[in-house]
Amino acid sequence: MATIVTLLTDFGLDDAFVGIMKGVILGIAPEARLVDLGHAIAPGDRRAAAFQLRGALPFFPAGTIHVVVVDPGVGTDRRILAVRYKGSILLAPDNGLLTPLFAASDEVRSVENTAWMRAEISRTFHGRDVFAPVAGHLASGQGFREVGQRVLPYADAALWPLPARERLRLLGCVLHVDHFGNLITNLEAEQLPPEGAGEVFVGGASVGPRRARYADVPSGEAVALLGSFGFLEIAVRDGNAARRFAAVAGTAVAVQTPE
Amino acid sequence: MATIVTLLTDFGLDDAFVGIMKGVILGIAPEARLVDLGHAIAPGDRRAAAFQLRGALPFFPAGTIHVVVVDPGVGTDRRILAVRYKGSILLAPDNGLLTPLFAASDEVRSVENTAWMRAEISRTFHGRDVFAPVAGHLASGQGFREVGQRVLPYADAALWPLPARERLRLLGCVLHVDHFGNLITNLEAEQLPPEGAGEVFVGGASVGPRRARYADVPSGEAVALLGSFGFLEIAVRDGNAARRFAAVAGTAVAVQTPE
Amino acid sequence: MATIVTLLTDFGLDDAFVGIMKGVILGIAPEARLVDLGHAIAPGDRRAAAFQLRGALPFFPAGTIHVVVVDPGVGTDRRILAVRYKGSILLAPDNGLLTPLFAASDEVRSVENTAWMRAEISRTFHGRDVFAPVAGHLASGQGFREVGQRVLPYADAALWPLPARERLRLLGCVLHVDHFGNLITNLEAEQLPPEGAGEVFVGGASVGPRRARYADVPSGEAVALLGSFGFLEIAVRDGNAARRFAAVAGTAVAVQTPE
Repeated sequence: MATIVTLLTDFGLDDAFVGIMKGVILGIAPEARLVDLGHAIAPGDRRAAAFQLRGALPFFPAGTIHVVVVDPGVGTDRRILAVRYKGSILLAPDNGLLTPLFAASDEVRSVENTAWMRAEISRTFHGRDVFAPVAGHLASGQGFREVGQRVLPYADAALWPLPARERLRLLGCVLHVDHFGNLITNLEAEQLPPEGAGEVFVGGASVGPRRARYADVPSGEAVALLGSFGFLEIAVRDGNAARRFAAVAGTAVAVQTPE
Repeated sequence: MATIVTLLTDFGLDDAFVGIMKGVILGIAPEARLVDLGHAIAPGDRRAAAFQLRGALPFFPAGTIHVVVVDPGVGTDRRILAVRYKGSILLAPDNGLLTPLFAASDEVRSVENTAWMRAEISRTFHGRDVFAPVAGHLASGQGFREVGQRVLPYADAALWPLPARERLRLLGCVLHVDHFGNLITNLEAEQLPPEGAGEVFVGGASVGPRRARYADVPSGEAVALLGSFGFLEIAVRDGNAARRFAAVAGTAVAVQTPE
Repeated sequence: MATIVTLLTDFGLDDAFVGIMKGVILGIAPEARLVDLGHAIAPGDRRAAAFQLRGALPFFPAGTIHVVVVDPGVGTDRRILAVRYKGSILLAPDNGLLTPLFAASDEVRSVENTAWMRAEISRTFHGRDVFAPVAGHLASGQGFREVGQRVLPYADAALWPLPARERLRLLGCVLHVDHFGNLITNLEAEQLPPEGAGEVFVGGASVGPRRARYADVPSGEAVALLGSFGFLEIAVRDGNAARRFAAVAGTAVAVQTPE
């Protein structure tokens, strides 16, 4: 069965950068199945990349290789990591973007095998010269250990803000604003009061208790519910919550819990 | 031969939603060939989805599965339809977006087979939890009838405006503004006077009789011609007709017919 | 081994145009591997298409078929070219966009074989009706010579501006602004003074001598360096050089060479 290789970058789609990476991968692993996770990450936004990757991982079959190139340090001596994670392989710069995934990782190696890289390595496009050919070699069945030695990765505790619990409040923030203007928070199911209990605030505004689904409020009204990635989300039914609440990644969210 | 699965959504490409759907499909049907029809439909714009789908269908080989997720009713009890249409299969919410295609459909079923869906179905992302795995099962050769029982779909006559004929005028509207600013109308070839006869108006402005091709007018001038999907289109040669005429979907178009 | 077919167009991704081309190709060559080089070329911008294509070609395996549809002359009697180039095949309108590649081309033919085209050819969408089916036939192994007779292509010397050398200055321009706001110039490695020597100017502003990599200047400062496609580039580390210097394609760039 052909290996799936996913690509997540901040390269955009205006240039041929992503297409070129695919050419390099297919030149080495002609059977690889290529899937774009997205290329619209804001330049250098490691948290957004971590968010998208973390949400996508559970939905790909075992053996998938995920390549993440959000790499403001390209051309410095930052390492590139190859990580075994729940049956998949992740390739990403060692800049902390994988921090939320390290706890459940099985093996972290540094990408060092120059025989798997392009002969000439530019100082500005490692996606093409290192990430893509290494992904190609892994996709064509080369052994994971040959990628390089085991290392201790750089972890950035500030990358992924954790919620704080006060006596009667859970304090979190917006992690991500999605395409529909939904506000995805860092509050997870097990931390929340049950449906219908408590009260959710975004910025200073109440959106009532957590509900089961969009349709539990009339069109045009705000609703807090458990989103499809397991986080509390704030939406406006048939509308745009980011615009309604002038919210961005980082905006405070609170849940008042019942006594 | 591997089955083609196309995807048409209003998910945008900023999030990994589309990539995740592909991961789910390939996890079930590893040989499926995935093609994006587009993900830039405005949120919930069923007419735009119908327009794009209708234009694309004739150009895919028999057996293709087309998945359309423009679904503002996700999480309500709206059904999902599986439709046999001219040798292909369409999956779409039962919200009227397939209305222009029902007349030529062979069989309409409701998607009910939970064994083909993800074990846990979120209330906000049926693209991932229902559409993608059902498409995967169909692409891997499972029988169409097993998807669910036959149903009468919801048709929305207002979705696709039909032209009106007065004695000496044909009255229609702009259905879609394409990437080049061309205005695609709801007026079809057989309704129109022959090339060179009649006079086409958009808003109040004349663009002369219908011509054969862009090059029949000088650069910078407006031209009405039969477009590549069989509809009357208004273009500006080497320019942008939507900007020239301040036209949007819905703008009135008239054709004065010769006596 | 399945043939790779790349697509580079000015069609954008809002419409299903690109997806439709893929449907036509896969209908003829079901095993073809499709790769998008990009679809965000400004309408009719032949130089941008030439730039993206030229940068991508070296990174695809031999036998790849590259389809370029940036074709403001569609519907006129402009020819379509099929070009053998370093083991690959290029399909593009005969409008000069391949000019920088003709010198190293092996064989240039006119696309004339109507048996390889769609039965009905629209006057506005040759991407679907000519380019895609011809690419499909070539991808499925049909002989290159059957495409049509050998021709002398239209070359446009003005398409790709060449640098001028004065006694102590090399005068060039910005060819392309990439997604990160980096300014890619038309000055190539062999024309430049060695690293650390000379002084690079964009518009009137100095950015110092050419350096080896982004990290040779502090965050927020401008840097000139040899980019990953072999051209001199001007970047702002962790920033956007196009915004800093208000530069666009065509902005003058000069390199003061040491005596």
